[in-house]
Amino acid sequence: KVRELVLPLHYADQADLIENLPPDERRALVTLLKPEFNAEILHELNDYVRDEVIATLGYQDLASALVELDSDDALYVVAQLDEAERAPVMERLPADLRALIEQGLSLPEYSAGRLMQRELVAVPAYWTVGETIDYLRAATRLPEDFDALYVVDPRHRPVGQVRLSVMLRRQRVQRLRDIMDTDIPLIRTTADQEEVARLFRDRDLMSAPVVDASGRLVGRVTVDDIIDVIDEEAEDDMLRLAGVAEVDLYRAIIDTVKARVSWLGVNLITASLASLVIGLFESTLQSIVALAILMPIVSSIGGNAGTQALTVAVRSLATKELTPANSWRILGKEMLVGVLNGLILAVVVGLIAWVWFGRTDIGYVIAAAVVINLTVAGLSGIAIPLALQRLRVDPAVASSVFLTAITDMIGFFAFLGLAAVFLVP
Amino acid sequence: KVRELVLPLHYADQADLIENLPPDERRALVTLLKPEFNAEILHELNDYVRDEVIATLGYQDLASALVELDSDDALYVVAQLDEAERAPVMERLPADLRALIEQGLSLPEYSAGRLMQRELVAVPAYWTVGETIDYLRAATRLPEDFDALYVVDPRHRPVGQVRLSVMLRRQRVQRLRDIMDTDIPLIRTTADQEEVARLFRDRDLMSAPVVDASGRLVGRVTVDDIIDVIDEEAEDDMLRLAGVAEVDLYRAIIDTVKARVSWLGVNLITASLASLVIGLFESTLQSIVALAILMPIVSSIGGNAGTQALTVAVRSLATKELTPANSWRILGKEMLVGVLNGLILAVVVGLIAWVWFGRTDIGYVIAAAVVINLTVAGLSGIAIPLALQRLRVDPAVASSVFLTAITDMIGFFAFLGLAAVFLVP
Ligand SMILES: [Mg+2]
Ligand SMILES: [Mg+2]
Ligand SMILES: [Mg+2]
Ligand SMILES: [Mg+2]
Ligand SMILES: [Mg+2]
Ligand SMILES: [Mg+2]
Ligand SMILES: [Mg+2]
Ligand SMILES: [Mg+2]
Ligand SMILES: [Mg+2]
Ligand SMILES: [Mg+2]
Ligand SMILES: [Mg+2]
Ligand SMILES: [Mg+2]
Ligand SMILES: [Mg+2]
Repeated sequence: KVRELVLPLHYADQADLIENLPPDERRALVTLLKPEFNAEILHELNDYVRDEVIATLGYQDLASALVELDSDDALYVVAQLDEAERAPVMERLPADLRALIEQGLSLPEYSAGRLMQRELVAVPAYWTVGETIDYLRAATRLPEDFDALYVVDPRHRPVGQVRLSVMLRRQRVQRLRDIMDTDIPLIRTTADQEEVARLFRDRDLMSAPVVDASGRLVGRVTVDDIIDVIDEEAEDDMLRLAGVAEVDLYRAIIDTVKARVSWLGVNLITASLASLVIGLFESTLQSIVALAILMPIVSSIGGNAGTQALTVAVRSLATKELTPANSWRILGKEMLVGVLNGLILAVVVGLIAWVWFGRTDIGYVIAAAVVINLTVAGLSGIAIPLALQRLRVDPAVASSVFLTAITDMIGFFAFLGLAAVFLVP
Repeated sequence: KVRELVLPLHYADQADLIENLPPDERRALVTLLKPEFNAEILHELNDYVRDEVIATLGYQDLASALVELDSDDALYVVAQLDEAERAPVMERLPADLRALIEQGLSLPEYSAGRLMQRELVAVPAYWTVGETIDYLRAATRLPEDFDALYVVDPRHRPVGQVRLSVMLRRQRVQRLRDIMDTDIPLIRTTADQEEVARLFRDRDLMSAPVVDASGRLVGRVTVDDIIDVIDEEAEDDMLRLAGVAEVDLYRAIIDTVKARVSWLGVNLITASLASLVIGLFESTLQSIVALAILMPIVSSIGGNAGTQALTVAVRSLATKELTPANSWRILGKEMLVGVLNGLILAVVVGLIAWVWFGRTDIGYVIAAAVVINLTVAGLSGIAIPLALQRLRVDPAVASSVFLTAITDMIGFFAFLGLAAVFLVP
C-alpha cells in the first residue's frame, strides 16, 4: 500500500519524504522500498539522512544501487562514506566502476574532476553532420542526455564543440570542423568547483568539457551539478557567518552540540575579553550606575552596523565583486557610511540617555562613543574579511568572531573611558 | 587602444571590468564602447552600476541595445528602470518588442512569466523525426539555443517534449508522439520564481515550458536564468539576516546610509528595551558591580547560540527541509541542544566568574542564567522563523531582531534577577 503510493513519485520527492519522517519510520520506509530502491534518491538526501539510509540498505544493496547511477553521482555517494565503509562497498562494485571511482577519489575534493561525469560524446572534426547523426542513431552507449558534442583531435584533445541545436539546423553534408564553436572553456580536472560555477554563471553554460593534465578530454560537467555547487557554496557562507558548519537539522543531538559548542566557546572568550575591558572601569561604574544600564546599547549597535558591512563584504568576496582593484575605495566608503550612521544614531541615543537620566553630559558621552564605535565597525566589517582572504582563511568562517570582539571592546572602552575622563567628579 | 583590449572580452568579463572601475572612469569606458556596446553586458551588471551605465548610454542607445537581447533579458532590463525612465525607452522600441515587454510587465514580479523567454520551438505530435529535422534546417526564426522541442496540440497546449539528444538517436520515420516525454512539468506564468527554481533543482532540468491561464504554451524558462534566481534568493536570505537589503557595494554613500540606518534604528529600540530590563536592577548593580562586568557574557552567548539555530532554520525553510511535518521534532531537538550547550558553557562561565571575583555564589547565579538563556535561545531560534513564516512574513527579514531582543532581555533578566534574589544581602 505504502509502496504503491511512494514508488510512482519522482526520486527527489521520495527523498524529501524520507527526510521528513522521524528516524524509525524512515528505516521502516527504506526497508519497504528496498527491492525497488531508486539509487538517485541517495544523491538528493541530506548527508545525515543518507548515512542512515545507507546503513539500512547494507553494503550489497548500496553497491547494486550505485551501478545504476551516472559515474559522477556514484562517485559522490562513495566519497561521502566513512573511510571504514568505503572498502566493503568498493569490493562489491564491478571492476570498471570501481576503477572510475578510485580515479575520482584520487582527485582533490571540491574539484571539477569530482563533479564531472565520464559519459560524453566525442567525435572527429572531419565527420559531416550526416555521418554524426547516423553514428548517434547506431551508437548503443551514449549518455542519457547531452546538449553538445565535443570535437576532438586524434590525441583526444577537444578542439571545439557543436551544440545539438546548431547541428540540427545544418545540412547533412556540412563538416563539423566548419560548424563547430572553437571558443569553448576548457576546465582542468583540478579546477576548484567554485571557479567552475563562476564560469557557468558568467557564460550561461549548460555543460563544459573537462581535460586532464595532458589536455585530453576526460569528462563533462553539467549544469545540474553546478546548481548543487552554487547552493552548497552559498549555504556554507551563510551558515559559517553564524557559526554553524552545515544544516544539521537531521543530525543527532549530541553531534549537533559537539559541532556548535566550539563556536560558542570562542564567543565566550571574546565576550570575556569585553568583560575585561569593562572591568577596567569598575570604579567608574560604581559611581555612575547609569553607565552599566546604557553600555550594551553602544556595543549592540556597533555589532549590528559591523555585521551589515561584514556580510556585504563576505558575499561580494564570494561573487568576486569585491576585488583588490576596488577594495580601498570600498573601505573608504564603508568608513564614511559608519561615520554618517554613527552621527544619526548618536543624536537619538544621546537624547534617550539625556531624557532617561536627566544628564546632558551622559548624553554627550554616549553619543561620542556611538560615533567612534560605528566608524570602527564599518571599517572592520570590510577590513577583517579582506585581511582573512589575503591570509587564505575563509572570511565566512572567522570574520564575525573578530568583528564582535572589536565592536564590543571598542564600544565599552570608548563609552566607559570617555565617562571616566569627563563624568567622574 | 582601450577598445581593442576590451571588446574581444566576453560580455560577462566586460561587465566585471566596468563594475570594478571608479565611477568617472566607468563613464569614460562606456562612452568609449558606445558604438559597439554589447547589450548582454547590461544583464550582468550590479543594479547600481547598471543605472549609471544606462544614464551614460542614453535612451536611444539603450533602446537599440535592447533589441539585440533575448526577450527575457530585455524585459529584465526594462523592469529594473525607474518608472520615469521606462516611457522614453519604451517609445523608442519597435512595436513587437514593446508589446512583449508590456505583457511581461503586467505579470507579477518574481514570477515565471518574468523569467521566461518567448523564443521556443513548438511542433505538432504527428510530425516525424525527419520532418522535424527538415523543418529546423529550413526555419529562419529559431531561438539561438534550445535543448528540447515542445510538442503541442492544435490549441497550442503542450502535450510532451522531445529532447534533442533523444530525437537525434531516433530514425527519421518515427513520429514525435511515439518518442516524446509526456511527463513534463508545466509552469504557470504566475508561478513564484523560487518554486520554479526548486523544480529545476529537484528534476535536474535544463529548461521547462511555461503556460498561461488557458494552458497555452507561451514561453520557456532556461536554467541559466534559474541560476541567477538561486543566487539572488540565497543572497537575499544571507543579507537580510544581517539587516542589509542587497549588495550595495556600488551604491552611493548617502543611499547606503539611508538603507541601512533603519535596521540600526530597530536595533536601537531592542537594545533600549534590554537596557530597560537592566534598569530594573539598578540597586542590585549598585551593590555588586561585578554583575555589570559579567552581564554582557550572558547576553552575548545567548545571542550567538540563538543565531546558530536561527540560521539553520531560515536556510531549511528556504530549501523546504524544515516543514510543518517535522517542525515540532526540530523544535524539541533545538531546545535540547540549547539545554546541553547551556550546561557545558555554564560550567566554564561559572568557573570564570568564581575565579575572577572569588565568589562561588556569583558563579552559581551566572551559570544558571546561561542555562536559562541558551534554552530560550535554542527554542526561539526555531520558533521565531516558523511563526513568521506562518504569518507570511519573510523569516529572513525579521527573525534576528526578535531573537536578539529575546536573548538580550532574558539574559539580563535571568542573571540580574537571580542575583537580586540570591546575592543581595
Ligand atoms: Mg530535497
Ligand atoms: Mg552530482
Ligand atoms: Mg548568467
Ligand atoms: Mg542570457
Ligand atoms: Mg551529474
Ligand atoms: Mg560543503
Ligand atoms: Mg566559500
Ligand atoms: Mg559579474
Ligand atoms: Mg539536482
Ligand atoms: Mg542527476
Ligand atoms: Mg534567458
Ligand atoms: Mg532581489
Ligand atoms: Mg526568500
